[in-house]
Amino acid sequence: MASPLPSPTDPPVTVAEAGAVTVLVCSSCRRTGDGPETPRPGTRLADALGAEACPGVSVRRVACLGNCTRGLSAAIYREGCWTYVFGGLDEGSSGDLREGARLFAGASDGFMPWRGRPEALKRGLIARVPPIDLLKDLP
Amino acid sequence: MASPLPSPTDPPVTVAEAGAVTVLVCSSCRRTGDGPETPRPGTRLADALGAEACPGVSVRRVACLGNCTRGLSAAIYREGCWTYVFGGLDEGSSGDLREGARLFAGASDGFMPWRGRPEALKRGLIARVPPIDLLKDLP
Repeated sequence: MASPLPSPTDPPVTVAEAGAVTVLVCSSCRRTGDGPETPRPGTRLADALGAEACPGVSVRRVACLGNCTRGLSAAIYREGCWTYVFGGLDEGSSGDLREGARLFAGASDGFMPWRGRPEALKRGLIARVPPIDLLKDLP
Repeated sequence: MASPLPSPTDPPVTVAEAGAVTVLVCSSCRRTGDGPETPRPGTRLADALGAEACPGVSVRRVACLGNCTRGLSAAIYREGCWTYVFGGLDEGSSGDLREGARLFAGASDGFMPWRGRPEALKRGLIARVPPIDLLKDLP
């Protein structure tokens, strides 16, 4: 369902109105050779993502998204929308996650747009799960 | 949070009380060489799973869980619990999914138990995402 083009007299749409998004970064994976005291890559990625505020986007760490062999992983969640899990990320992926979250926050159909989505979130898609509210409409 | 041991005078716990579970089978993947009229493997799997009733477990088809290169895929959902995505399934996986769903329905901590989980749902785990209610408690 495409959203209608805004009229010049429409009030500006804020991200908060469009839908707040949460990025869940997997903080469990450890690199081969890293000692127990070395900050885990997911922790570094979450810190980098959280350090640069993006309106309507919050960041959380989660212990194990279960995508261990294809990490580093993150999920992007928005209430009432599909949830996306991405793998193959690295400590420098904060910009890509931020851009994906920003795109998703502005979507009107519950899906993260493909057009404009960073390449890392296209080739790194691991899975997506539908929103609860959709279950009753499925065959 | 472990549930207390039942007392001999407690009424029997039904699966519905423990928590209804939904299995979402990806109906999009097509096998190489199959024509457009050939039923897709996910459709066959969903039909097989739905044909044998399991109390408290419902089955839905969903168009694309996004795990296309690691299909055949299914997700198992229970409200207030983690959602699990599995890949590498085949048309004969209905028994494994049914057993996983049954185990999950009886869990008291929001996780699908590892002990007793069918092998296909151990090695085939693709990802898991936490329940919405957990987000506020994450760092």
